[in-house]
Amino acid sequence: MDLKAYLKEQCQRIDGALDLYLPKETELPYSLHKAMRYSVFAGGKRVRPILMLAACQAVGGDTARAIPAACAMEMIHTYSLIHDDLPAMDNDDFRRGNPTNHKVFGEAIAILAGDGLLTEAFKLISDPLFAKDTPAEARLAVIREIAVCAGSYGMVGGQVVDMESEGKEDIDLPTVQYIHTHKTGALIKAAVVAGAILGGAGERQLAAITRYGEAAGLAFQIADDILDIEGTTEEIGKDAGSDEARGKATYPAVMGLAAAKLEAQAMMDEAMRALEIFGAEADPLREIAQYIVQRKN
Amino acid sequence: MDLKAYLKEQCQRIDGALDLYLPKETELPYSLHKAMRYSVFAGGKRVRPILMLAACQAVGGDTARAIPAACAMEMIHTYSLIHDDLPAMDNDDFRRGNPTNHKVFGEAIAILAGDGLLTEAFKLISDPLFAKDTPAEARLAVIREIAVCAGSYGMVGGQVVDMESEGKEDIDLPTVQYIHTHKTGALIKAAVVAGAILGGAGERQLAAITRYGEAAGLAFQIADDILDIEGTTEEIGKDAGSDEARGKATYPAVMGLAAAKLEAQAMMDEAMRALEIFGAEADPLREIAQYIVQRKN
Repeated sequence: MDLKAYLKEQCQRIDGALDLYLPKETELPYSLHKAMRYSVFAGGKRVRPILMLAACQAVGGDTARAIPAACAMEMIHTYSLIHDDLPAMDNDDFRRGNPTNHKVFGEAIAILAGDGLLTEAFKLISDPLFAKDTPAEARLAVIREIAVCAGSYGMVGGQVVDMESEGKEDIDLPTVQYIHTHKTGALIKAAVVAGAILGGAGERQLAAITRYGEAAGLAFQIADDILDIEGTTEEIGKDAGSDEARGKATYPAVMGLAAAKLEAQAMMDEAMRALEIFGAEADPLREIAQYIVQRKN
Repeated sequence: MDLKAYLKEQCQRIDGALDLYLPKETELPYSLHKAMRYSVFAGGKRVRPILMLAACQAVGGDTARAIPAACAMEMIHTYSLIHDDLPAMDNDDFRRGNPTNHKVFGEAIAILAGDGLLTEAFKLISDPLFAKDTPAEARLAVIREIAVCAGSYGMVGGQVVDMESEGKEDIDLPTVQYIHTHKTGALIKAAVVAGAILGGAGERQLAAITRYGEAAGLAFQIADDILDIEGTTEEIGKDAGSDEARGKATYPAVMGLAAAKLEAQAMMDEAMRALEIFGAEADPLREIAQYIVQRKN
C-alpha cells in the first residue's frame, strides 16, 4: 500500500469532519471557539483518529461510522496538549513551531478551550445526528472506553505522575512504564479499541486490537524518547535533548539508549504479532505503527 | 412535605454514591484522587443532583436509575468550580469557607483534578455496571444533554462571557441574560431534563420539565445576585458585595435591585406554571425551587 497517500487521504477526511463538527468562530463566544479551533488546526498529524479508522477497517467495518468518534479523539488529544502547555504545567511557549494556546489567547481562555474541547468530544459521540446506524450500545461502549483511558486512571493520571517525577533522581522503570502507558499509551489504545467496537468487532478481534494498541502505544512513546535524544531540533520541532534537560522520566534515562531501542522493537514485534489473525485489511494498522516508530519527527 | 428531611435524605444518597463512584485516595495517582475528592466533599449542597432525582420522580420514574447521572452532574459542577477558582480565572482562595483546590494542591493538580472529574462524569453515565435497566438510547440522550449544557454553548461559554464582561462599564441586559442562562442555568436545566429522560418522560412531560429548568435556573441565579447584595458575609460564606466590587455583570447591576426581585419572582412563577401538568409527585421540584430562591445562603 502507498502509506503516504493513505495518511494524506485519511488526514483530509478527519480535517474536513473536524471543521464541520467544531463550533464556528462566528458563534458566541467567539474568543472561545477561535481558541478551540486554533489548537485543533495547529498542524496535528491526526495519528489517533487515523488509527481509529484503520482499526475499524481491520475488523471489516465501515470507517464512515468511526469518523465522529475519531474527531472526538483528536479533540481530547488537543485539549490535553493545551492544558499540558500551561504555565502551571509544562510552561511551553511553542508547539509544532506555533505559539501555544495560552500565549495567543491568555491562560483563562486556554483552560476553558481545553474544557470545551473535552466536553465537545462526548457531545459528538452521543449526537444522534452522527450515529450512522451504529447501535446505541456500541456508542456507549466507545464513550466508556475513551473516558476511562482519558481520565484519572488513564491520560490525566499519567500526566500527574510525569509531572511529579520530573527532576527526581531515582525514577525506576515501573514508574516510567506507568507514565508511558497512561499518558500516551492509554489514548492510543482507546483509539483502536473504539475503532474496532464501531466496526462491529467480535471478541477475538477486539482482544487482538487491544493487544496491538497497548504494545504500539508503548512503542510510540519509547520511540519519542529516543527521537528526543537522536533527532535534531529542526527535525522534531522542539529543542532536542529537552527531556534530559528537564529531568523527564524516559526509557533511555532509566535503561540506557541501546536497551530502549531493543524495547521499542520488542513492543513493535508484539504489536505485529497481535495482528496475525487479520489479513490485508489490517495493513494500514501495520504500516502506521512501523512508520511512527521509525519516524524522524 | 418536610423539605428539610427530604433534602437531607437525598443529600445522603448522593454523598454515599459519590463516595462509591469516585476513585479512592489509595489508588494511583494518590495526589490527583485526593484533590478530586477534596473538592467534591467540600460542603456542596447537591442542588443539581437532587433536582435530577426530583425531576425523575416528577415524571413517575424510579429515582435509583438517576443516581449515577446525578453524581456525574455534581462532578461536572465541582470541576467547574475548581477551574473557576484558579488564579488565571477568578483567583479565589476560599470557597464555602475552605481553601480552594489550587491553594491546597497547587495549580497543576487543580487543573488536572478538574479535567479528571469532567472525564469521570462521562465514564460514570456510560458505565454498564450502573445502567439499572435504563435503555442505552436514554443514557446516550443524557450524555448528549449534559455535554451540550456543560460545553462551549453552555456553561463553559457562560464563564467566558462572564470573565470578559467583568469590570466593563456598559454591560447590557442581553449579556447578563446570556451569562446567567449559560453559566448556571444550563447545568440546572440539564439536571432536570436528564432526570426526566431517565425517568422515562413522555414528550409533554419533557417539555414541561425543560421549561421548569430554564425558568428556575434563571431565578436561582438572579436570587444569587440579590443575595450577594442583601446577605451578610457570614450568611453567604463569601464577602458580601463582592460582585459589585469586582464589576460583575448581574441583574441588579443592569436593572436595579427592585426590578431584579420582580424578575426573579416572575421566573419562579413561570417555573411553577410549567409544573401544573403534574400532581403531588412534582412537589419536591416545587419546594426546592421556592427554597433556593428564598434562601439566605
